[in-house]
Amino acid sequence: MKKYRMLLHYKGTDYAGWQKQPNQKTVQGELEQAINKICGKRCSVIGSGRTDAGVHARGQVAHFMLGENRETKPLQISLNAVLPSDIRIMNLRRTRALFHAQRDASRKRYAYRIYNGSVLSPFLSDYVLHYRAKLDWDRMRKASQTLVGRHDFSGFTSSRCRVSSKVRTVIRSEILRSGYFLWYRIEGDGFLHHMVRNIVGTLLEIGICKRDSQDPHKIIRNRDRRLAGPTAPAHALCLDRVWY
Amino acid sequence: MKKYRMLLHYKGTDYAGWQKQPNQKTVQGELEQAINKICGKRCSVIGSGRTDAGVHARGQVAHFMLGENRETKPLQISLNAVLPSDIRIMNLRRTRALFHAQRDASRKRYAYRIYNGSVLSPFLSDYVLHYRAKLDWDRMRKASQTLVGRHDFSGFTSSRCRVSSKVRTVIRSEILRSGYFLWYRIEGDGFLHHMVRNIVGTLLEIGICKRDSQDPHKIIRNRDRRLAGPTAPAHALCLDRVWY
Repeated sequence: MKKYRMLLHYKGTDYAGWQKQPNQKTVQGELEQAINKICGKRCSVIGSGRTDAGVHARGQVAHFMLGENRETKPLQISLNAVLPSDIRIMNLRRTRALFHAQRDASRKRYAYRIYNGSVLSPFLSDYVLHYRAKLDWDRMRKASQTLVGRHDFSGFTSSRCRVSSKVRTVIRSEILRSGYFLWYRIEGDGFLHHMVRNIVGTLLEIGICKRDSQDPHKIIRNRDRRLAGPTAPAHALCLDRVWY
Repeated sequence: MKKYRMLLHYKGTDYAGWQKQPNQKTVQGELEQAINKICGKRCSVIGSGRTDAGVHARGQVAHFMLGENRETKPLQISLNAVLPSDIRIMNLRRTRALFHAQRDASRKRYAYRIYNGSVLSPFLSDYVLHYRAKLDWDRMRKASQTLVGRHDFSGFTSSRCRVSSKVRTVIRSEILRSGYFLWYRIEGDGFLHHMVRNIVGTLLEIGICKRDSQDPHKIIRNRDRRLAGPTAPAHALCLDRVWY
């Protein structure tokens, strides 16, 4: 068996997320169908991790196996030709037999985009959260930094998260600003279900002074989801990069 | 009656074009509905011109009239709140009684975006034509320049174009390039139905050496639509600016 590694970009708007589900349009499902169509083989596509319904990726990594050895450039072109235009294989190459897109991922980066002005361009509305209430960037910036480190993130995950350990290391957590745009960037060794969106929901409430800027630390200490803010909308989140 | 002038951005993907039509989702229709909802008045929205189904705008100008004098900032906010997120009023202001968005438009600029590389980002596929055959940029650039001037553009319009005079002045016609992206920009005192898309269809055939770079001139001279290339797809065209 030969193993292939893909770098994927996708616009998540019209998908029920990464993971294959019966009777749902999913990114994993579309990729497996495309491979089946081109190679005549049913095979599993394994991603670095799931993304929620509506979440985008411009750095998802995935692998799959084929019995035969195929030239990668023509294979990439053929697969892209049958994939819907909102999913693209940006790079495709052979990889070592032991490579595993999920288990070998050492670090990931997500970005969450927010617009805090009065009118959001219609060309950005699929990718950016339009938040109308005035945000205090400086408060959010300070609060975001308190998330850096090795913590138990139980308080920031959903009750549907079933992993055994909820301890993760956040290497970077920062809010950048350019005009009316705010851009939250978080980098870590792994993320729990809804973790980034719950952090953003909490930071937004800090930004409108609805809660204290020390709250993220309190939520981590208490491991209580009820203390955190609401889950921020999916459409403004993007998986930016995965490291191996 | 008070007259109001709007600067509009819209993503044309899901619309049957600018002009209101029965049982179709149109930009003009959505705007008139929004005004009706907010002001309780049926009124006509007059644009600088029509855009085809699927064509975008980031510089459309339109006007409408209301019996009462309304503060423009709150009116703009209310209208945007009820409009779909792919149509946005970027600016709204009172204007003089005699202003007419269509008749007073003195100049317009359209842009047509083409990607000539192997994989087009899924985040651009709604706005950019993915053209796979290698294009000779220099040939296209030279051919595009021959369109500048005052000409009868009958050869570049569709048979459905019913205006009396098909003479228009093109002030600028150029192809810019940045990496694999080509960007056709045309500026003139007015445009006929499908004119820009037929010009682009012809320039693309010049780019792949399927036709001579003197063809645009020949098509203008002969005023024969059958000599021109196919109508390029709508989704890569954008009305960029209207001057008054």
